[in-house]
Amino acid sequence: DPSLERESKPRLSGLTMVIDKGLGLTAFKDLLDLAGDYIDFIKLGFGTASLTPFPVLKEKLNLAGLHGIHLYPGGTFFEVAWAQQQTDDFFHTLSDMGFSWVEISDGTIDLQDEERSRCIRKARDCSFRVITEIGKKMKGSVTPVSDLAHTFFKDRDDGAEYIIVEGRESGRNIGIFDSQGGVDTDYVLNIYERVESHRLIWECPQNPQQVAILKLLGSKANLGNIPAQEALSVESLRRGLRSDTFFTFGGYSI
Amino acid sequence: DPSLERESKPRLSGLTMVIDKGLGLTAFKDLLDLAGDYIDFIKLGFGTASLTPFPVLKEKLNLAGLHGIHLYPGGTFFEVAWAQQQTDDFFHTLSDMGFSWVEISDGTIDLQDEERSRCIRKARDCSFRVITEIGKKMKGSVTPVSDLAHTFFKDRDDGAEYIIVEGRESGRNIGIFDSQGGVDTDYVLNIYERVESHRLIWECPQNPQQVAILKLLGSKANLGNIPAQEALSVESLRRGLRSDTFFTFGGYSI
Amino acid sequence: DPSLERESKPRLSGLTMVIDKGLGLTAFKDLLDLAGDYIDFIKLGFGTASLTPFPVLKEKLNLAGLHGIHLYPGGTFFEVAWAQQQTDDFFHTLSDMGFSWVEISDGTIDLQDEERSRCIRKARDCSFRVITEIGKKMKGSVTPVSDLAHTFFKDRDDGAEYIIVEGRESGRNIGIFDSQGGVDTDYVLNIYERVESHRLIWECPQNPQQVAILKLLGSKANLGNIPAQEALSVESLRRGLRSDTFFTFGGYSI
Repeated sequence: DPSLERESKPRLSGLTMVIDKGLGLTAFKDLLDLAGDYIDFIKLGFGTASLTPFPVLKEKLNLAGLHGIHLYPGGTFFEVAWAQQQTDDFFHTLSDMGFSWVEISDGTIDLQDEERSRCIRKARDCSFRVITEIGKKMKGSVTPVSDLAHTFFKDRDDGAEYIIVEGRESGRNIGIFDSQGGVDTDYVLNIYERVESHRLIWECPQNPQQVAILKLLGSKANLGNIPAQEALSVESLRRGLRSDTFFTFGGYSI
Repeated sequence: DPSLERESKPRLSGLTMVIDKGLGLTAFKDLLDLAGDYIDFIKLGFGTASLTPFPVLKEKLNLAGLHGIHLYPGGTFFEVAWAQQQTDDFFHTLSDMGFSWVEISDGTIDLQDEERSRCIRKARDCSFRVITEIGKKMKGSVTPVSDLAHTFFKDRDDGAEYIIVEGRESGRNIGIFDSQGGVDTDYVLNIYERVESHRLIWECPQNPQQVAILKLLGSKANLGNIPAQEALSVESLRRGLRSDTFFTFGGYSI
Repeated sequence: DPSLERESKPRLSGLTMVIDKGLGLTAFKDLLDLAGDYIDFIKLGFGTASLTPFPVLKEKLNLAGLHGIHLYPGGTFFEVAWAQQQTDDFFHTLSDMGFSWVEISDGTIDLQDEERSRCIRKARDCSFRVITEIGKKMKGSVTPVSDLAHTFFKDRDDGAEYIIVEGRESGRNIGIFDSQGGVDTDYVLNIYERVESHRLIWECPQNPQQVAILKLLGSKANLGNIPAQEALSVESLRRGLRSDTFFTFGGYSI
C-alpha cells in the first residue's frame, strides 16, 4: 500500500458501497472472499431483494455479516412499499429477514419533508440504521445545493447515518453527472463544503467518475454503486495502485 | 410484486431470453439458482456451443432442464454448418448432445425463401422445436416491415414457435436500433401490429432499450439477448420494481 | 472449427491475454474450466496482485499452472515498486509467491533507456520471463512508430519475450485507439511491419477493436486485455464462429 493511509474496517470514511444487481450466491461469496476487506456496504439494487429466493437472501445476509459488511435493500424497494401504503409491513418484514440497515429515498415517489422525516424516524423506531438518498431518478434531474443541504441536515436530525447523492446505476445525465457521464466539479465541491462530507456517499458507477471524485475530494471519499467486478479496481485507485491516481495518492516525492 | 400480473413459468409471453457468452459452469448454476424463475430461454451466443468442453455443455443442459429453461445454440452455429453443407450432421449432433430447441437464421449467410423453409422443416423433422431470427447482422441493416412480416408468417407455417428480431449483442446500428442504441418506435409498432406479437422476441441487450420496448409494448413483451447479470434487473422492470417502470407497471393510482 | 487453422497450446502466436480485474477464486476456476484452452496469459490488472488475499493468489497461480496459462502481475505493480525504489524486493517477493513471468512497463513512471534495460535484465537475472509494455497511460498519448520500434528491439535484446502495445483497460483515446475507441489502421500496420509482429500483444478490450485487429493482421494476432467474460467470444472470432469474421476466417469459397 503505497498510500500508507488506508484504514482497515470498520472505518468511518473511505467507504465503498457495491451494488449487487443480481449476483448468484457463489459469486457473492467469491466477491467477499476476494475483496471483503475493501467493501463496507452492499446494496441489493432496485427491487431485487424481493426477487431473490429467500434461502439465497438469508445466506447473503449471513456471509455479509461474517465479513463485517452491511447488506441492505435499495431505496426503490422502500418506495414501492410506500406507494402501496405498506411501510409498516415493509419494516417488519425486513427486520424478520435479518436486515439491520435500510435505505429511505424518494427518487421516484414524492415525499414531503414531514413524510420523509416520519419514515426515517419510523425506521429508527424499528431499530434500523438508516441511509437516505437525495435526488430524483428522472433524466436530467439536479437538486439545487441549498435544497440538498437542507434535506441533508434534516435527515441527520432524524437519525440517518449516511446520505447518498443519486447517480443511478448508469451514471449519466443525473445529479453530478452530465449526459456523457462527466462530473460537475463545482456542484460536487459546493455540496462537499456545505455538509458533513464524511457522511456523504457519492454514487459513481464508472471508472472515470471514481477517479474524478477521488482526485477532487481525496482518497477517503465514500463511493457508491460500484459494480461488483470493480471493487478491487476502486481499492487500487484509493491506494495509488492504478495509473490514474498513482501520483495523487502514492505519496512519492517525484 | 406490485404489478400483480406476472405469470409464473411455463408462460407463453413475457419471456426472457438470456445470452450466455461464456459463463463457467458454477456461474451458470449460480444464475439459475438465483433467477431461474425469471428466465425462459438461454442462448449459447455465437458459435460458443462448439467451444464449450462437452462435460460443461452436458451439465448446462441438465441444469437448464431442471429449471424449466430451454438452452439452445445461437443461430451463427447453424449458419456455419450450413455454409459447410453439413446441416444434416448438425441436427444429428445437437440431438445427440441433448438439445431440443434450435435457432435457424441467416444473419450472415443468405438463405432463399425455399431454402429457409427446407431448413426449418428439416429441424422439425428431427424433432426440434424451432426459433428463427429475422434480420441481417451487417451494420446499418434494416429489414422492411413487409419483408419481415412475410418471413414471419412463412416461418410460422413451417413450424417456428418464436421469431427473433435481430438486435445483435451490441444493440447498436441494427434493425430497431440506431447508431446510439436508440429504439425506432414507429418501426417497432409497425412490426408489432403486423404479426402475432406474442411470438416475437425482441433482442435488446441494453437497459434503456429494455425500458423502451416494455413501455411501448407492455410488460409481457418477450425480450432477448439479456446479459446474464441483467436478468434480475429485467424482471424488476417487468414488475414495476425499478424506477424506470415504477408507475407504468406498478398499478398505483397516483 | 471452420478455420481449421487454430493451433492448440502451447502456441507462439494467436495468443490471448485475459485481464483479471478481480475475479473471485471460484470465478477464476470456472473460467479456466470453460476456456482454459483458449487463454495463454492472464494479467492481474493494475496493482490488484497486492490486494488479493495470499491464499487466493496462491491458488490462482496453481490453477493457472495446471491449465498451461501464465499468470503475471500488471505493469503498474512493478512501477509502484520502482517508484518506491524497491525493485529488488519486488522481484524476490514475486519469485517467492511463485510467479514466473513479470511485466516491465513505464506507462506512468518515466524510465530512461538504460534504466529500462537494467530492470529487464534484473528480472531475467532473477529467472523471470519478461513481458514489456510500450506506451504511456496518459490520455491522448501516442508513441511515434520509430520510438516504439527502437524500444521494441532494445527490449528484445534485453530478453523480453513479448511486447505489449498499450491500450489500457478502456481502449479509448490511447495509442492505437481514438477517443471513440476506433483503431488507427495506418499506425497499426506501420508498427506491424517494423518489428517481429508475432512478439507483439495488442491490448484491445472491446469487441469492435478485436474484430478490427484480427481482420487487419489475421487470426493469429496476439490480443491482450480481453475481459474474462469475452474469452470465448474472442476465440469465436479467431475461428470464424462469430458473424464479424465468418467469411474472413471461415475458409468458405462463396
